[in-house]
Amino acid sequence: MRAVDFDKLRSRFHLPDDKVYLDGNSLGALPRKTEARLQEVISREWADELVSGWNTKQWIDLPLSVGDHIAPIIGAKQGTVVCCDSLSINLFKALNACLEVNEGRSLITLEDGQFPTDSYIADGLSQLLGSDRCRTQAVDIAALTPETLSESAVLLLSHVDYKSGTLRDMDAITTMAQSAGCLVIWDLAHSAGAVDMDLEASHVDFAVGCTYKFLNGGPGAPGFLYVAERHHDVQNPLPGWMGHARLFDFEAKYEAAPGIKRFLTGTQSVLALSAVSASLSVFDGLAMRDVRAQSLALTQHFINLWEQSSILQTHATLVTPTDDALRGSQVSLALDNAFPVSQALIADGVIVDFREPDIVRFGFSPLYNTFSDAERAIESLETVLSSERYLRPEFQIRSTVT
Amino acid sequence: MRAVDFDKLRSRFHLPDDKVYLDGNSLGALPRKTEARLQEVISREWADELVSGWNTKQWIDLPLSVGDHIAPIIGAKQGTVVCCDSLSINLFKALNACLEVNEGRSLITLEDGQFPTDSYIADGLSQLLGSDRCRTQAVDIAALTPETLSESAVLLLSHVDYKSGTLRDMDAITTMAQSAGCLVIWDLAHSAGAVDMDLEASHVDFAVGCTYKFLNGGPGAPGFLYVAERHHDVQNPLPGWMGHARLFDFEAKYEAAPGIKRFLTGTQSVLALSAVSASLSVFDGLAMRDVRAQSLALTQHFINLWEQSSILQTHATLVTPTDDALRGSQVSLALDNAFPVSQALIADGVIVDFREPDIVRFGFSPLYNTFSDAERAIESLETVLSSERYLRPEFQIRSTVT
Repeated sequence: MRAVDFDKLRSRFHLPDDKVYLDGNSLGALPRKTEARLQEVISREWADELVSGWNTKQWIDLPLSVGDHIAPIIGAKQGTVVCCDSLSINLFKALNACLEVNEGRSLITLEDGQFPTDSYIADGLSQLLGSDRCRTQAVDIAALTPETLSESAVLLLSHVDYKSGTLRDMDAITTMAQSAGCLVIWDLAHSAGAVDMDLEASHVDFAVGCTYKFLNGGPGAPGFLYVAERHHDVQNPLPGWMGHARLFDFEAKYEAAPGIKRFLTGTQSVLALSAVSASLSVFDGLAMRDVRAQSLALTQHFINLWEQSSILQTHATLVTPTDDALRGSQVSLALDNAFPVSQALIADGVIVDFREPDIVRFGFSPLYNTFSDAERAIESLETVLSSERYLRPEFQIRSTVT
Repeated sequence: MRAVDFDKLRSRFHLPDDKVYLDGNSLGALPRKTEARLQEVISREWADELVSGWNTKQWIDLPLSVGDHIAPIIGAKQGTVVCCDSLSINLFKALNACLEVNEGRSLITLEDGQFPTDSYIADGLSQLLGSDRCRTQAVDIAALTPETLSESAVLLLSHVDYKSGTLRDMDAITTMAQSAGCLVIWDLAHSAGAVDMDLEASHVDFAVGCTYKFLNGGPGAPGFLYVAERHHDVQNPLPGWMGHARLFDFEAKYEAAPGIKRFLTGTQSVLALSAVSASLSVFDGLAMRDVRAQSLALTQHFINLWEQSSILQTHATLVTPTDDALRGSQVSLALDNAFPVSQALIADGVIVDFREPDIVRFGFSPLYNTFSDAERAIESLETVLSSERYLRPEFQIRSTVT
């Protein structure tokens, strides 16, 4: 087996020379191929093909063809993933589908501290359907047992927790939940493209994810939805024309398309999907276990440097597990003054982000981050802390987005 | 008042030299400005700003800033329009909001032959909520009276019918429906950007639309949602983090943002919204009554030519009303062999589209179509019919998309 040439992979991305970019867990960098492909879509396809591009350039197939491109990255079969809408909208579809499949149960269980949009959507569905048909409970993940799930229709969990970077055991938790008659939806936002997984082998029911983090699809790129083949006959609660069995017959009555296509609703942005499609091609030929190994090596290197630094040992607590099996592709440190420290790091060219209340996240994108990125980040953090530079007034100002 | 220079406007678009493009009612042409702006968003903003672009380039504001850019085109106040998701998803939000506002009524009335996705979404909501909370009826638009609407929570209508091109009297129908205690949602897909309207003066409750037709936002560009200010306190049934009052506080409990922002759900594509934003700037400084006058003059010219053509009088029936007040921005002809005729026209460089069962649509985009486009289309149609060229085998093959 040939080793992956990560330097060559890195060269496929447009990265600013003067910065250490450790926020690919929030927005992935621009692949050079994507830049070129988008220019072609705009200046050749939209401009010249105009409406016929839906046929001649297969725009109409993009949600499914991009879904098929995502499939091997998450261990899904062809024809089980669709790329469309946002993660939130796809989660709405998946949650309602679980209530349909698991008729007789009305409880959605999710985790305390789940990424907000997940709990908002679950609570929103409960409010829409009424508490007799749908209610939610948030539990401590450590308390999850077959007993606590015995009334749950579905368990919704993040594969990697966005704050701590903790990776959950997809296989064991799915098995445990299903043994209690509970379906499982995994939110792959912080794992797809960085963590190897096998949705089919783990017998996952549904999964949702986004393409703008480790899949590098661009700012606000569409979400995706995985539906296990055994659930392909459930209803889409948002049935739009793009999910109809015979789209261009314009029939008055809805008839769901067979397969994953029925989970489409309205028309999808060709620009947005073309960007995702081009960015995914960077993964072509890569084994996800190699990507995962690189991710673990990078975060391990960062953790080793943290361990060896006396100033960081004093001021920064490691929140992310050191155990490989429990670590996603980011390292989170808890520290006093976390917000101004994150701003001072950014001013120093080390792009990280802050999460309430006291977390600085260092995200490692295995396709383009390097070991020296980890070293420069640690050095910068040591300097920011020892110089107390973070106390400067300009670093105290909260912006609306970080 | 200075007359609008439509030749100059046309020069702002990239249009193929060898074609007469009469399908801007399906996909608008590419504005040159949009091409340049997208290149900047990709190669400068995403590439160099990376995650900080959400702040530094105001990406986070795009759904609302683009909404504010659409507002004057449809006669809406600032702060009442959001550009996001698809028309179908926005319709779901609007329909559920109407049921909430009009508590005690559960009936959605729409039109026989409504554009399919509208009826699919309405039927889907009924199925989701149950028939005691939501049911739908489709009626002949001629049969609409205060009496037929006396139990309806909401009337959902297309401003311009996609098949016939008939324009509905927004003001009169809204007043009539509201006199029966019924709210009104207008689907502006086939009118926004070509027909002048004043949602505020007409006291419209909700409106949905798409940006890829006369607004030239690009293939599959996002939808938009108008919510009258008096309804800004209703719930979004798809409450996502982008609609939260304090997005980046990551609170466990949802609290809707004030105003139109609460109708946002998940993260939106920056590429897609940037394209819409740039394309809308072609409208800057234009009065919609001038745009409308040009649209009417173009379709009237086409109708005059049809009237003067003996072969068209024999073979093609005008479906679109000749009355200006009842005509949108397309002319639809019904004829035998409509599908092969449409294909023969396309082969001749006149880009039109076919709609079941026997309609050929000639869409006129007032910003870039010309009087000579109408003349060339009529000439081509005469030739196709008189030569019986449409009988060729290659024109009989149905593609999946037209």
